[in-house]
Amino acid sequence: MAKRLGRQTARLERPPALLGWAAVGGKKEGEGPLRRGFDLLSEDSYFGEASWEKAETRMLRACFDLACGKAGLAPAALDAVLAGDLLNQCVSSAYAMRASGIPHWGLYGACSTMAEALALGALLFDSGAAETLCALTGSHFCTAERQYRFPLEYGGQRTPTSQWTVTGAGAVLLGAGAGSLRLTELTAGRIVDAGVADATHMGGAMAPAAFDTLSAHFAETGRSPADYDAIFTGDLGALGHDILEDLFRRAGVALGPRYMDCGVLIYDAAAQEVGAGGSGCGCCASVLCAEILPAMARGVWQRVLFAATGALMSPTSSQQGESIPGICHALVLERRD
Amino acid sequence: MAKRLGRQTARLERPPALLGWAAVGGKKEGEGPLRRGFDLLSEDSYFGEASWEKAETRMLRACFDLACGKAGLAPAALDAVLAGDLLNQCVSSAYAMRASGIPHWGLYGACSTMAEALALGALLFDSGAAETLCALTGSHFCTAERQYRFPLEYGGQRTPTSQWTVTGAGAVLLGAGAGSLRLTELTAGRIVDAGVADATHMGGAMAPAAFDTLSAHFAETGRSPADYDAIFTGDLGALGHDILEDLFRRAGVALGPRYMDCGVLIYDAAAQEVGAGGSGCGCCASVLCAEILPAMARGVWQRVLFAATGALMSPTSSQQGESIPGICHALVLERRD
Repeated sequence: MAKRLGRQTARLERPPALLGWAAVGGKKEGEGPLRRGFDLLSEDSYFGEASWEKAETRMLRACFDLACGKAGLAPAALDAVLAGDLLNQCVSSAYAMRASGIPHWGLYGACSTMAEALALGALLFDSGAAETLCALTGSHFCTAERQYRFPLEYGGQRTPTSQWTVTGAGAVLLGAGAGSLRLTELTAGRIVDAGVADATHMGGAMAPAAFDTLSAHFAETGRSPADYDAIFTGDLGALGHDILEDLFRRAGVALGPRYMDCGVLIYDAAAQEVGAGGSGCGCCASVLCAEILPAMARGVWQRVLFAATGALMSPTSSQQGESIPGICHALVLERRD
Repeated sequence: MAKRLGRQTARLERPPALLGWAAVGGKKEGEGPLRRGFDLLSEDSYFGEASWEKAETRMLRACFDLACGKAGLAPAALDAVLAGDLLNQCVSSAYAMRASGIPHWGLYGACSTMAEALALGALLFDSGAAETLCALTGSHFCTAERQYRFPLEYGGQRTPTSQWTVTGAGAVLLGAGAGSLRLTELTAGRIVDAGVADATHMGGAMAPAAFDTLSAHFAETGRSPADYDAIFTGDLGALGHDILEDLFRRAGVALGPRYMDCGVLIYDAAAQEVGAGGSGCGCCASVLCAEILPAMARGVWQRVLFAATGALMSPTSSQQGESIPGICHALVLERRD
């Protein structure tokens, strides 16, 4: 049984090993600083399909297949997939797994979905209900733009606070095994709404949720930021990153240079015109699999805190004048040699 | 630790007690045969709010509060809420829980969400990560109609195979305690796509998924339908109910009169003009809380198999010519005196 360290944090009795992972990206991600970490980069935004929605589905399935291949596991060996995405009714992840024959748990955590899937997956493993499973999510710039904002053909101008939805996916396989990387703890996020209603400033809307979850994590574990070699938030972007630093500074806590944000890391802000940085389920999912896990496997970091953030709004809720609630789920990833 | 009976089925080592539950419905549900089981029925489809989306949010929160009240639990005593709904980006359940301060796991299982939430919640309890938690979902006829089909003002004709989205919600609290009802086993569903592309015939699209999950359940537990006092599917409606019976009959299995469908039970088909019956996350969630659990508590049934079904499509996927994948998660509920 997992050991509860507090209301939000649990330490796993059987921390699952990370058996394999894969990252897929699009053209823009292939022009960014993390390009060498991706397992597959597609120059074609359609991934060979007839629509962007089908492209997103194809991308997710390709990512899943790559992760299985790297882990040496056939889909038939998996007991569960935990997956979600940003599309209405989470269709890209559902259609991606449609033919897999694997028990499926559909999630919606907006851009926090990768951490949610890994956290629930680790608990399924710890409970004994699943021995080998996959956490899978992704996003696509073109499907997100037309669903959340404007038709791409419209060519709408973007505010400096806005973020660029990553065309990318990440898949991580969890299970029993001798892998040196393990998911050892998780901190479940609460919904936090700081009253931000600007749907072009997601970093500002989500930073208070990251502050809430990371504060709970530090309080319930008795640790400080210095106990981690690196701390990553999901996709706060450059502005959200600074807001989170400010929130902790006011609380007397210095996050320091170990604190980075996946939305900042994935693009070259000076060269790529991405506003405040990357966003989308595929942002932290692909950065996790293209950069963080490979670096941990190489021994760069021993203990990492991975905190994915999501904005739980819809175009309809924004049109009806609602503010934007955020959520953040955090995981501790450790290398044990 | 849970005991795995097979790839899809687990028996819980620590089966959580059902500490309390509540069902909320709208005007039409209040005119149906289960009306006396609802804790709250609203004549006003707006539930006092300015939009139907806000009404759905209000309804979910009211349902959550009623369940907490009946269980004698304050929200602060809960370690987790597992919740989802049908609206784009699951906003009604997220906004309903926005101010609760409870760790939140967002799910998307379409109309299977109640079983998904209870199954994952039971595993969180079994893993020790959460001691007291809530499974919550619902749907609203008016939000679903305009999101999935047509503006209500359009007054579109409905096919005989179509189902009526239930305005309703259900909430169940799980945890340690002396309650006589327990969630003892679960069977995780796989995505099954039988090629049905008619979005006005959800029962036909989802019945193969129910057949797949229930077949796995019987095979992995070594049981037959006769080992249950009652078997409920989520919202197959009258046609889906008969299709599922046919599928089992061809496999040499008689489900018998113990097999019922929540979408059939909730309305009076002869009097209420609901096509093939009820549907929506709120269908099986409210039937569970208004009818099934109260009847179990009264001793009518000792062991029930509850199998909620969902269709994992969106209007966009239908417009792009995709068929409709279904999923079904099943739970065993037992009364232990």
